[in-house]
Amino acid sequence: MTIDLNADVGESFGAWTLGADAELMPFLSSVNIACGFHAGDPSTILRTLELAAKADIAIGAHPGFPDLIGFGRRDIKLEPAQIYADVLYQIAALAGMAKTQGLPLHHVKAHGALYNQAAREISTARATAQAVKDFDAHLCFVGLPNSMLEQAAQEMGLRFIAEAFPERNYQGQHLAPRTHPAASIDDPSIAATRAVQMAQGRIETLEKQTLEIDVQTLCIHGDNPNAVAIAKAVRFALEQAGFQIKALI
Amino acid sequence: MTIDLNADVGESFGAWTLGADAELMPFLSSVNIACGFHAGDPSTILRTLELAAKADIAIGAHPGFPDLIGFGRRDIKLEPAQIYADVLYQIAALAGMAKTQGLPLHHVKAHGALYNQAAREISTARATAQAVKDFDAHLCFVGLPNSMLEQAAQEMGLRFIAEAFPERNYQGQHLAPRTHPAASIDDPSIAATRAVQMAQGRIETLEKQTLEIDVQTLCIHGDNPNAVAIAKAVRFALEQAGFQIKALI
Amino acid sequence: MTIDLNADVGESFGAWTLGADAELMPFLSSVNIACGFHAGDPSTILRTLELAAKADIAIGAHPGFPDLIGFGRRDIKLEPAQIYADVLYQIAALAGMAKTQGLPLHHVKAHGALYNQAAREISTARATAQAVKDFDAHLCFVGLPNSMLEQAAQEMGLRFIAEAFPERNYQGQHLAPRTHPAASIDDPSIAATRAVQMAQGRIETLEKQTLEIDVQTLCIHGDNPNAVAIAKAVRFALEQAGFQIKALI
Amino acid sequence: MTIDLNADVGESFGAWTLGADAELMPFLSSVNIACGFHAGDPSTILRTLELAAKADIAIGAHPGFPDLIGFGRRDIKLEPAQIYADVLYQIAALAGMAKTQGLPLHHVKAHGALYNQAAREISTARATAQAVKDFDAHLCFVGLPNSMLEQAAQEMGLRFIAEAFPERNYQGQHLAPRTHPAASIDDPSIAATRAVQMAQGRIETLEKQTLEIDVQTLCIHGDNPNAVAIAKAVRFALEQAGFQIKALI
Repeated sequence: MTIDLNADVGESFGAWTLGADAELMPFLSSVNIACGFHAGDPSTILRTLELAAKADIAIGAHPGFPDLIGFGRRDIKLEPAQIYADVLYQIAALAGMAKTQGLPLHHVKAHGALYNQAAREISTARATAQAVKDFDAHLCFVGLPNSMLEQAAQEMGLRFIAEAFPERNYQGQHLAPRTHPAASIDDPSIAATRAVQMAQGRIETLEKQTLEIDVQTLCIHGDNPNAVAIAKAVRFALEQAGFQIKALI
Repeated sequence: MTIDLNADVGESFGAWTLGADAELMPFLSSVNIACGFHAGDPSTILRTLELAAKADIAIGAHPGFPDLIGFGRRDIKLEPAQIYADVLYQIAALAGMAKTQGLPLHHVKAHGALYNQAAREISTARATAQAVKDFDAHLCFVGLPNSMLEQAAQEMGLRFIAEAFPERNYQGQHLAPRTHPAASIDDPSIAATRAVQMAQGRIETLEKQTLEIDVQTLCIHGDNPNAVAIAKAVRFALEQAGFQIKALI
Repeated sequence: MTIDLNADVGESFGAWTLGADAELMPFLSSVNIACGFHAGDPSTILRTLELAAKADIAIGAHPGFPDLIGFGRRDIKLEPAQIYADVLYQIAALAGMAKTQGLPLHHVKAHGALYNQAAREISTARATAQAVKDFDAHLCFVGLPNSMLEQAAQEMGLRFIAEAFPERNYQGQHLAPRTHPAASIDDPSIAATRAVQMAQGRIETLEKQTLEIDVQTLCIHGDNPNAVAIAKAVRFALEQAGFQIKALI
Repeated sequence: MTIDLNADVGESFGAWTLGADAELMPFLSSVNIACGFHAGDPSTILRTLELAAKADIAIGAHPGFPDLIGFGRRDIKLEPAQIYADVLYQIAALAGMAKTQGLPLHHVKAHGALYNQAAREISTARATAQAVKDFDAHLCFVGLPNSMLEQAAQEMGLRFIAEAFPERNYQGQHLAPRTHPAASIDDPSIAATRAVQMAQGRIETLEKQTLEIDVQTLCIHGDNPNAVAIAKAVRFALEQAGFQIKALI
């Protein structure tokens, strides 16, 4: 009974700070580090790697669309060849910087609109997964279960890590869109209860139906103002329920 | 009697093309590939790597200041820690992309204002050389002989490759600044004659004095409109003079 | 019998040159100047304004998506409020710079993916047209006839200038996509013949059908390698056919 | 007995928030709005203009170096012609956006490294002041008294507004550099006392000497975490001392 707890970190940029990475990391078992295209910059990456090393957790690359002003959350129509090159560049930059600190890259998780587009469109998913595979076929590939991300991982022979979101509501089979008034869950105790259900294989949707899932990681959004409290509550509840919080080996 | 012949390549960006990389590479033994900060982008890097693989020449990272609009040619006052992070990121991105094509990184050469600042200021040189060393202590480090770049390489135990510029004039001990009317030499035959002298250990300055030098590589500027003709003439003259054109192993 | 002849100019960026603006302008009666988001930069804008002043032709702002690496040719899903703000900023920057050279802004024409998206989607067209109107309700608004661009102009009470493309083929009612092998017409004499037909109210499509149109401007793509020869041939043919080449007053 | 109280605002960028503009503005009589080069973006500018309109205070353009990652605080060596173009573009963009909201541009104040460089170097000061003058010769030009900024304003015939910094310490005749441990003053009551002294014509330096000055505006740094408390205390103290807080007309 193990489960991974991940968050997106390293999302500051230059003079602008985002997220409470140092406070958040002690509750996590893995982090996805922004690579400089939608957020992050070389100095921020180094600082984030140091925090991750100190917290002794697994690190992943978190590549996004080249859209700083949109924080990688806006759909951009790129050719698959461009997605491949952009993702490969970002993974390489992050992995190479991590190597200098003795940290091996553990996984890749796409960010924002790239993640959503790759979950929907096989061409985007394949371009992303191919970049992961070409860089290092032993990397884990994190994504939405039953999505094109999972299909691409299977096609490439990449180890897939399915994720769920304890502080996001689900509608039908999917995440409720961010524009939905109940998209986010800010109450740490509700997020904690949902986290345990998810680790046990169930998600309750907004329509009060139960989805059966099989996920290996749970994601806390680092830019949620309650992120630290949520992570703390989620971790405590999971441990109480008998789960060990650790990254997949 | 061997000498390396290098040029800066991969300096296109998105829809904008710069340089005649495909025509130039067959005359070279190594290239310095822009890494996306002053020029280049992930798709351009991939294309450039393919050309280098086809030409079977050594590849190096060509990191620059984060100054796309200034093409990395404007002095920016960065903290050494930022220079270190920026250079490390760029080397890592390029080396990681090259690895997927089976190309090992051979060297690092700083670009433009970063090169000039590092030649002058030991703090910039050290930050740059430290990033090279931390990424891979076996990489060669290309730079101006008798400069802070050379000193930093020695301090770090990096293998230093001294370079000279056959199509640039020298003033006193240094390159004539680009603003000097005779800064550039556009005539391929003059460049070729100077290249042979340089390979033989001599540079004639604008003041008609002779500098004694010991250089292992000669650089052709890829953005010179005559670059291809110059490279061709230089290579032919060097071979006629008994030099073998090849990268240091 | 007058017709306007326009082209996109000012599309260089920093060290990268695109287009032959100085050679092209003498054949035109108006230009659309890139504003720094998909191409162009402040120094390029000033240089372009000087050329336009010398050629004594009408100037327009050519706002695009904030996508330098994609040259504004990739679809980005922006909120209408962001499109409004981005377009307003670009118009303001260009108009203010033009004012210092005594040049009044004549029109606005959206660029690339913004143009195409606004031609298709009324929300994008309205956000763009609203920015034009709020900046200066007397500006002309250039776009595809019978598109959402035209509808938005009518709703806002903006003067609409309908345009056709003599060096692009049409498929059905629309431009053949750039991916179509016959998308572009490189032969100046064919472009010239089509220009006269268009000025006279007809377009012959790839399916050999004739569209009836009513256009007030014809566009030559400045990044076409034949742009200057095409502009010259088109202008000559139009004048031979009795048209006066001038911007709408 | 009037004095202006200004702050730099609009320094957020995309998803990143900086400063507490809405809380700060009610205590000010003028603001300097970032124009998108070192901070700010079109949507942020619009939001900031709305706040300024609501607070009914004077607005100025706050142009900076094109250095988002460095927040415009790093020295960059630009040609004067580039500085001129960059500043003109930024003023034009901001003024044009303000015009659509019925807000006239009141002044221009350079940001960060551009401000400091222009205070020191007459060529930078002239390029900046020339852009102000060419855009609108009636604009006020804010800067350090007895600096090259003041000299350039005089040469151009621009109305100069001299400023002092109540929450910054002075060393000799100048601001103590940001690297000085006592560079900033975080205690609102000390800042308030200094503000009154400055409005009355005196600055006490770190060496306990008294500089005689004649300033018309006092600047509160909006990115100071105590900015709101400082602005409140400064305003109250100035009003208690008999000063009316208002922008120059």
